[in-house]
Amino acid sequence: MQNKLKIINDPVHGFIKIPHEILFDIIEHPYFQRLRRIGQTGLLNLIFPGATHTRFHHALGAMHLMFTALETLKQKGVKISEEEEKGAMLAILMHDIGHGPFSHALESMLMDDWHHENLSLLLMNRLNDQFKGELSVAIEMFQGKYHRKFFNQLISSQLDVDRLDYLKRDSFFTGVSEGSINTQRIISMMNVCEEGELVIDAKGVYSIENFLTARMFMYWQVYYHKTSALAEFLLVKILERAKHLVSLGVDLPATENLKYFLYRGKSAATDEDVERFTQLDDNDVIQAMKNWQNSDDFVLSYWCRCVTQRNLPKTIISSHSFDPQFIEEKIKKTNEYFGIDNGSELVHEIKRKLLPYNTEKQPIYLLQKSGEKIRLEDSQDQLLSGLMVNKTTRFILTFPRDISHTIS
Amino acid sequence: MQNKLKIINDPVHGFIKIPHEILFDIIEHPYFQRLRRIGQTGLLNLIFPGATHTRFHHALGAMHLMFTALETLKQKGVKISEEEEKGAMLAILMHDIGHGPFSHALESMLMDDWHHENLSLLLMNRLNDQFKGELSVAIEMFQGKYHRKFFNQLISSQLDVDRLDYLKRDSFFTGVSEGSINTQRIISMMNVCEEGELVIDAKGVYSIENFLTARMFMYWQVYYHKTSALAEFLLVKILERAKHLVSLGVDLPATENLKYFLYRGKSAATDEDVERFTQLDDNDVIQAMKNWQNSDDFVLSYWCRCVTQRNLPKTIISSHSFDPQFIEEKIKKTNEYFGIDNGSELVHEIKRKLLPYNTEKQPIYLLQKSGEKIRLEDSQDQLLSGLMVNKTTRFILTFPRDISHTIS
Amino acid sequence: MQNKLKIINDPVHGFIKIPHEILFDIIEHPYFQRLRRIGQTGLLNLIFPGATHTRFHHALGAMHLMFTALETLKQKGVKISEEEEKGAMLAILMHDIGHGPFSHALESMLMDDWHHENLSLLLMNRLNDQFKGELSVAIEMFQGKYHRKFFNQLISSQLDVDRLDYLKRDSFFTGVSEGSINTQRIISMMNVCEEGELVIDAKGVYSIENFLTARMFMYWQVYYHKTSALAEFLLVKILERAKHLVSLGVDLPATENLKYFLYRGKSAATDEDVERFTQLDDNDVIQAMKNWQNSDDFVLSYWCRCVTQRNLPKTIISSHSFDPQFIEEKIKKTNEYFGIDNGSELVHEIKRKLLPYNTEKQPIYLLQKSGEKIRLEDSQDQLLSGLMVNKTTRFILTFPRDISHTIS
Amino acid sequence: MQNKLKIINDPVHGFIKIPHEILFDIIEHPYFQRLRRIGQTGLLNLIFPGATHTRFHHALGAMHLMFTALETLKQKGVKISEEEEKGAMLAILMHDIGHGPFSHALESMLMDDWHHENLSLLLMNRLNDQFKGELSVAIEMFQGKYHRKFFNQLISSQLDVDRLDYLKRDSFFTGVSEGSINTQRIISMMNVCEEGELVIDAKGVYSIENFLTARMFMYWQVYYHKTSALAEFLLVKILERAKHLVSLGVDLPATENLKYFLYRGKSAATDEDVERFTQLDDNDVIQAMKNWQNSDDFVLSYWCRCVTQRNLPKTIISSHSFDPQFIEEKIKKTNEYFGIDNGSELVHEIKRKLLPYNTEKQPIYLLQKSGEKIRLEDSQDQLLSGLMVNKTTRFILTFPRDISHTIS
Repeated sequence: MQNKLKIINDPVHGFIKIPHEILFDIIEHPYFQRLRRIGQTGLLNLIFPGATHTRFHHALGAMHLMFTALETLKQKGVKISEEEEKGAMLAILMHDIGHGPFSHALESMLMDDWHHENLSLLLMNRLNDQFKGELSVAIEMFQGKYHRKFFNQLISSQLDVDRLDYLKRDSFFTGVSEGSINTQRIISMMNVCEEGELVIDAKGVYSIENFLTARMFMYWQVYYHKTSALAEFLLVKILERAKHLVSLGVDLPATENLKYFLYRGKSAATDEDVERFTQLDDNDVIQAMKNWQNSDDFVLSYWCRCVTQRNLPKTIISSHSFDPQFIEEKIKKTNEYFGIDNGSELVHEIKRKLLPYNTEKQPIYLLQKSGEKIRLEDSQDQLLSGLMVNKTTRFILTFPRDISHTIS
Repeated sequence: MQNKLKIINDPVHGFIKIPHEILFDIIEHPYFQRLRRIGQTGLLNLIFPGATHTRFHHALGAMHLMFTALETLKQKGVKISEEEEKGAMLAILMHDIGHGPFSHALESMLMDDWHHENLSLLLMNRLNDQFKGELSVAIEMFQGKYHRKFFNQLISSQLDVDRLDYLKRDSFFTGVSEGSINTQRIISMMNVCEEGELVIDAKGVYSIENFLTARMFMYWQVYYHKTSALAEFLLVKILERAKHLVSLGVDLPATENLKYFLYRGKSAATDEDVERFTQLDDNDVIQAMKNWQNSDDFVLSYWCRCVTQRNLPKTIISSHSFDPQFIEEKIKKTNEYFGIDNGSELVHEIKRKLLPYNTEKQPIYLLQKSGEKIRLEDSQDQLLSGLMVNKTTRFILTFPRDISHTIS
Repeated sequence: MQNKLKIINDPVHGFIKIPHEILFDIIEHPYFQRLRRIGQTGLLNLIFPGATHTRFHHALGAMHLMFTALETLKQKGVKISEEEEKGAMLAILMHDIGHGPFSHALESMLMDDWHHENLSLLLMNRLNDQFKGELSVAIEMFQGKYHRKFFNQLISSQLDVDRLDYLKRDSFFTGVSEGSINTQRIISMMNVCEEGELVIDAKGVYSIENFLTARMFMYWQVYYHKTSALAEFLLVKILERAKHLVSLGVDLPATENLKYFLYRGKSAATDEDVERFTQLDDNDVIQAMKNWQNSDDFVLSYWCRCVTQRNLPKTIISSHSFDPQFIEEKIKKTNEYFGIDNGSELVHEIKRKLLPYNTEKQPIYLLQKSGEKIRLEDSQDQLLSGLMVNKTTRFILTFPRDISHTIS
Repeated sequence: MQNKLKIINDPVHGFIKIPHEILFDIIEHPYFQRLRRIGQTGLLNLIFPGATHTRFHHALGAMHLMFTALETLKQKGVKISEEEEKGAMLAILMHDIGHGPFSHALESMLMDDWHHENLSLLLMNRLNDQFKGELSVAIEMFQGKYHRKFFNQLISSQLDVDRLDYLKRDSFFTGVSEGSINTQRIISMMNVCEEGELVIDAKGVYSIENFLTARMFMYWQVYYHKTSALAEFLLVKILERAKHLVSLGVDLPATENLKYFLYRGKSAATDEDVERFTQLDDNDVIQAMKNWQNSDDFVLSYWCRCVTQRNLPKTIISSHSFDPQFIEEKIKKTNEYFGIDNGSELVHEIKRKLLPYNTEKQPIYLLQKSGEKIRLEDSQDQLLSGLMVNKTTRFILTFPRDISHTIS
């Protein structure tokens, strides 16, 4: 058992301690080890070559921040039992356990209507059976059913340790310093108010605003970067196309498990579905795309070559939707250039939108020196929060690079 | 001469190379060496103990960024002669050479109406005489008289290498990560447009916006932090008080040079003024405050003890001006507590304001792929710039800590 | 073409510029893009979860350091033509292009006697044909045939930019700070002596010694960490076992290209070999191991489960070879535990050795102020170099974890 | 009281928490606030301009590391009472409280035979009186009289938190990355053995060896850098000279407190000595040197100009003592050049020596998995420790720069 209280190297947070045996057991489980083979940011490494980090590492990092947050709260006088500590750490450790390859892109693709959070919950319940109920508190916290609300807010809210870890981690591995946040500072400002909700000590207001702007920059500079958006979009189209071809009777090479999902129709999830799902990872999809480069289907092979050889289509970004006539023209040129008639398959408008700070759902609260709890945007110290409450939308038009020479 | 092409360690930028002999000669000059004894951020180290860095180091850092910026521009095809490179590097190296001890706080205190930029120019001209005109181009660039405008814009504008260095450096030494900016990225996005003005490549828009928000956070979190504002305010009051006492015939211990300025009345600057000024530094003022702790004047000794022993008065911050009646009450309590009748000397409202992005004077321009130059706030990619165009003001009320126990 | 002069984000070095069009063309080539799918440190991420970085990124990083090194040398007066700069940058960019999946572990496994450097050269020559001889200088430099020796020394020596990048990069991604080196400082100390060889300015002596100790720590703490050594060893055994089973007529699932190499006997390399090799990457091997977990062969399935589920065998490390009787005992217990008779397949002694500083082959030279060139270990300033000239060897014994409970 | 549990920004360790009220009270005390005006590394900023950090900040940093170390030990099952925690943190907070201006250079200069540790103890006892015995445990621990030895070893040994902080801090502020150590890692490896002594978990062996090499590099690259050694040497000579002149009846301008010590003869320390000592800081000495540039004494004014204007004499470094004849020649040239006859005052050989790892006094112990405690140098894993057990000595010859032109 002493052996299980390991320390794991993390270039982002330094060292990650595993203070409870059960955490180690979950980490060792094949369901969790699978996350080693699922990238945290999908195809983003095509644009930011350092972004090869995994969901495995993110989950450990978030668990570490949870530990730090709970330590901070205890030092401020919040009572937290060992069972609650274990529960909260387990919940955040497993919060992404239901992620499949290249989710978010593919999650509804492989299993209709299955959101990764449902799958996470399903797998947690399975693990809970195996570990004889030891995960029950964790599951309650994950679902927001635990009576002390701040545990769930640390797991899932506008300022949870999930976001704290992924922003810092993605910023670190992409090298996009605009997204860097000071997790240590933000956590040191966390507190719990009388009603048992997560709040931020008022003097942390600028760190929170910096967190909100950093997140916004990460979205537009990284996650919604026009080429990132394109790569994710292509992935979805590739799997859609493959499912479509398969439904037409075309035989596409793929691993057994991936094939299973390509052939699977719309229906309720079975035990086999879940079992096979837990054996899928990014390799199945990457390998399929490598193979499908040689498919007889022009569209499938075109897209797979685009991704595999990183020879990506052209994109234009705009804050307005593109003129349908302009799009029509691109399709026409595509048809002409390739001598095809389904050029519309290769020209698409992709839409991305972001609300930097949502004041409607789970606003962020500041704890005044007086003990009063106020909304971030109502603080007289706030500088930007009140300005970041509107959605921004961007439109990205993609079309074959080859035809762009003849246009602009 | 080989000996002069030194490398200087800088924890902020890594290594600073000195590529021209004349730069080394200026650095060696006593006028410049004096900057080693002038802190970059005055009394801020009372709040941020790491902030002990000097104007000497900042000037070297800014020179380094100028070098990097010019290298970048050359790689983009902008022709820059060796004479221009030397000029620009000299100008930024010397841009703060006229700073006295604890400026900005004290600059108009020691010599009436003398702004440090005037003094910098005056000292540059003196050095130019000594170096037989070698600094003429630098001085033209510093004054904005050189025909290629971007050189002056690199020295002094809303996005100059001065700001780039001091933001990064102050963030580094204070440990306030919210102010950290990516100077390497911002400089790599610099360009010169057809009209010879400094512009930013359009894809750098988020780095610029991040720079603007980082700067705003540094102002409110560091420079205008209520205790920082207070410390700077006290310094001014101390020197004012000392001048006042001296004018009444009180003998205050001070170094010879500081005494000279305490006694000096309002009049045009003489050669002696300048000579003595270049021998003053922070030590003269710190030493004086140490001594004046024992002054017979209650107010002077009170303030000097506050600063020297870091036993600072109480402050409250607000986004509105304080109610005169509330202030009056504080004065009354002060009088009562100390048994004095000039309690109004110890109760003050300090005001700080900031315009994060000034669209009127020297707006920041983006260079579109099309070659067109547009204002940052007009870009369709901008997320925050258009929102940061209004002044924010804060009011800080200070009064003796001792009386606060009886109030809140 | 303007479009090709891109900037790539690198969390390690900041930003990587691509200053010549031909470099961009090579990066775009499928041979090079393949390196995105080949990890820099193989299975090390089983021990250091951050170590998911790729050979693709390393090659770009090394190219960046080459650029920096050449800029430094030019500033010191070394004449370097544009053709030489391109050549050196191309050579280092392509120096690892011949790496296959999980080399160094597998390089001699897939293709007998084929060292990755031979393959790199072969692929460079193919590319040179495609690019009509534009890579000729690069290839000369890579082979050490170019008349100015320092170019080859920058590519391949005890202090080349390859080592500088991989040490810094591996230290960064593993989070093992003991291996961190100051590449900027080391490069700033590089020079070329009269004979045209790479030397280090004498005052850089401690940076070089720090580089040597950092490298030594990285070997024993990371690359030769007992679990790292084990993982690499298992990989080799898995492929050996698979080849063996295939030769016995067993049908093992694998991608077409991997299968090709499993079946390929010993013979001279053909064009098909090369073509197929350039389509292999880590995914082929990972996918195979995932499949082979279910193999009927006990040994193969055992090892593949070990690696895929990170349920690794036990290891003991020692500075002496293990007692044969002790090993024999482990084998006996393994046979007993599993009820098998080939337990010797699961018990192995792995050996790792390192010579921190090799004074025989390519010693490192310091350039004294006097212009004299001396060996690092002969410098009167050196502190450790003279002590680091002997090989250290470690022995690692591995055996099934399950039997360890019955022993210690 | 809530108000006292502050957080202090530290660019080195992130944030420093003050978990006990008494710590805050000590920090507020004028004895401790004085450390804000005493540089951690004396005149080193003449060579490394970033090194302007103070003993105040170092003491806080060491206190923070003590807190982290104790947390780690508790997590490993070592029982530590709150009183012990307070004691250990107080002891390390105050360990340098007896430092005067520019100690170590000046400590025996101002008050004969007074080592700063004696003064620290004396001041601690005074504070203990003021705080009614609350510091008693701290003082016991500081003196090594507390029954659990590891507390004293954390305060003062070959691997104490004092060294951990100053190495990391000095490396950070100088920018000399070769001295960077991973304090977080080293502390996470700390443990207490059965005998109650501080030990290091065996797997931390390389982190310890890296600490030893980093320390060695910091000594030779920074603290004993020939110009650093020179600057410190000059400071001593300046004060010696001033005392000498004063003893001859020369009137030298100085602050009242500094004057007191210049005039003070050899005798036992009085209460007045202590009182005045606690009012001295770097400013007194810097201001004196600024004034003494104009002294009538050639030697004093020469040295003070050297330091104040950073126009330092020439130095040569060697691993052997210099030939007396060579030195004689320098003296002769000095006499000739300046037309003086006491040139021997300006030519000196300075000696610096370092023992990287002392196996005699307080060796470092590793805790084997078996529970056995072995000496670092006896571990079979150690790579360098056994090689670093001998003293290295360097000799630095200094002489006026002006005469060097006539020689080499």
